[in-house]
Amino acid sequence: MALLVQKYGGSSVGTLEKIRNVANRVCVEREKGTGLVVVVSAMQGETDRLLNLVQQITQRPGEREVDALVSTGEQVSAALLAITLESMGVPARSMSGAQMRIQTDGHFSRARIKHVDQDAFKTALDAGEVVVATGFQGVDSAGNVTTLGRGGSDTSAVALAAALNADECEIYTDVLGVFTADPRICPQAAKLDEICFEEMMEMASQGSKVLQIRSVELAMNHNVPIRVRSTFSEDRGTLVHNEDDALERLVVRGISHNMNEVKFTMYGLPHGKGAATKIFSALAEAQINVDVIVQNAPRENHIDLSFTLDQSDRYKAEDVLKPVLETLKSHSLEIDEKIGKVSIVGVGMRSHAGVAAAMFETLYAQKIDILMISTSEIKVTCVLAKDDIEKAVGALHQAFELA
Amino acid sequence: MALLVQKYGGSSVGTLEKIRNVANRVCVEREKGTGLVVVVSAMQGETDRLLNLVQQITQRPGEREVDALVSTGEQVSAALLAITLESMGVPARSMSGAQMRIQTDGHFSRARIKHVDQDAFKTALDAGEVVVATGFQGVDSAGNVTTLGRGGSDTSAVALAAALNADECEIYTDVLGVFTADPRICPQAAKLDEICFEEMMEMASQGSKVLQIRSVELAMNHNVPIRVRSTFSEDRGTLVHNEDDALERLVVRGISHNMNEVKFTMYGLPHGKGAATKIFSALAEAQINVDVIVQNAPRENHIDLSFTLDQSDRYKAEDVLKPVLETLKSHSLEIDEKIGKVSIVGVGMRSHAGVAAAMFETLYAQKIDILMISTSEIKVTCVLAKDDIEKAVGALHQAFELA
Repeated sequence: MALLVQKYGGSSVGTLEKIRNVANRVCVEREKGTGLVVVVSAMQGETDRLLNLVQQITQRPGEREVDALVSTGEQVSAALLAITLESMGVPARSMSGAQMRIQTDGHFSRARIKHVDQDAFKTALDAGEVVVATGFQGVDSAGNVTTLGRGGSDTSAVALAAALNADECEIYTDVLGVFTADPRICPQAAKLDEICFEEMMEMASQGSKVLQIRSVELAMNHNVPIRVRSTFSEDRGTLVHNEDDALERLVVRGISHNMNEVKFTMYGLPHGKGAATKIFSALAEAQINVDVIVQNAPRENHIDLSFTLDQSDRYKAEDVLKPVLETLKSHSLEIDEKIGKVSIVGVGMRSHAGVAAAMFETLYAQKIDILMISTSEIKVTCVLAKDDIEKAVGALHQAFELA
Repeated sequence: MALLVQKYGGSSVGTLEKIRNVANRVCVEREKGTGLVVVVSAMQGETDRLLNLVQQITQRPGEREVDALVSTGEQVSAALLAITLESMGVPARSMSGAQMRIQTDGHFSRARIKHVDQDAFKTALDAGEVVVATGFQGVDSAGNVTTLGRGGSDTSAVALAAALNADECEIYTDVLGVFTADPRICPQAAKLDEICFEEMMEMASQGSKVLQIRSVELAMNHNVPIRVRSTFSEDRGTLVHNEDDALERLVVRGISHNMNEVKFTMYGLPHGKGAATKIFSALAEAQINVDVIVQNAPRENHIDLSFTLDQSDRYKAEDVLKPVLETLKSHSLEIDEKIGKVSIVGVGMRSHAGVAAAMFETLYAQKIDILMISTSEIKVTCVLAKDDIEKAVGALHQAFELA
């Protein structure tokens, strides 16, 4: 029997009417004879409502209790969907993270899944019941409820699909699928019918908010095909999968951008004193993720170093860097908030020369200054002035014929 | 170390401010060096909010899913109380029914506790943490979440106190304790400092809504002293316990009444044809609880039979009785909704003659007609016209000098 995992986000189960819409979709699939595990997030607004209660009590709540609290949000939506399905004559069974025996590590609020016990699902699936699974949660080895952090429900869905050997994992959201660029700033952007895992990871980490990068990584490791599609449309969405069999690759599959980063630049650091090591160790210790890093060649025994990081870490990073820069006797830290990042992504780049050059040429023709460049095997990223991002995305979209 | 179980109802944890009040009480007790397990109900209104969502979906929801849904209410209040305690510097740990391993049978919405695993509490109590336990819930042998039915949190608290060998189980509510009569209709009613289990059971089943009868029964079976007291007062409340050591007993401890019953009377049933058996078997099969039953001596081979039952079962009972009465060729069913019930309760009655007579005399002196009489070892109940109940309670309260 075919087995499908479907995941519906908070906006898809935000009201009883929307839950009924989801139930209808589940019914249609089930009538084809497909076995179904349906993963749900909390109803839109519910997690925030609970966290708001916590904020009224204290600014520094215990993480264990916050997880115990917010995990109820998914239990509510799962039970409501199961009740709706049963009212339509479809046998259904809600299951919490504990009931599914989704084992995680003990890091509250950002736990990682270690193991999923497929036996927990056997009774229900053998009986032809739809399993309605609470996303976003698991239990640690001591039986404490843990949550998986932002985008955790996508990760839950992929983990279940992997453990149960599902044929596909459908991620329902409020957009039609993955686009060649962000349609909000690039009206010519087209929906992709498919994309491979590596490209999706680059697109996700570059700011396409459709899928969490963790879930894509997990899907790639277990070769679980993901279909991203809209709850409110019949469009088949975008299939994210392993495209090893494709003979001809598109050189550039899509363009992603990000306007939520800031650029740090330190001029005249001493060369050969481990400056970079000291700086990035300090940031890593403070759990700050650094994105693009560029270091120029040393000149007169000094180097210039630039990197970007998320706006939310800006002040924390500044605090961390100050003492480090003092020991390095550098006093020239420059922070630029008016930057953005644009990337072209495509596995076809591996075998095509001149892709980066084509990108720089396009930007140059638009009179756009490139502030930083970073490349990987399947991506070229340029940091630009924030005001240039929209123009750059449009020009690149046209240059690489993505419309 | 002394161990105390405290239980706070929905009105005691209805807002964050009230939760803070509860936390303050817990702190005071903990500073005495007492080990604490605090059982909480859902925040006032929360269970109704969830059930209202269900009613919008279907009138006949699956019971398993309803239990999974409403059990989240206690998880929320437990986590919020734990967060509040931690914010005050008190180590605390919320635990769900599943985490406490409260094993129940598989009857959703009215499960009975079979076993509580005291090992589940060991780590937390040994570490000096306050355990904040979700009331009202457990898990069946298959791991499904079950709820214990109305008043279930009282039962949870007593079950935990029994399993953990607690010194006392405090039930916090919005009244000062158990009264000699209902203060709403008898202003002279006085709070009792103590009452024994048997008396409390009669008071509870006779309509004093302070404690659920199930929890009193459980406490009696395991000899767990219960203290009923107010969340909003320093009064020590009422101790419900085993009073075997009391030398002198009050003959009448209190008066209870109930105005939510209806009286069914069947005249001229055939004698010796098993009429009573057929009638009460039919009611029992339909899960209808019958309260007071009176059958007169047969006359000309016919009997008259009366009984009372809760108003909510009135129409169901009528439907059940119709075919039975047809087979018995009886067509004289009379249903009286304008009745009430008043009882005097006291273990001292066992060794005192004339208590029932004193009750009848008092009612007679007030010109109150007695419609039915029923007695047990420690109670005398009279069914009266509803309009006479208030006067009867007042007169009996005075006659037995309870003020």
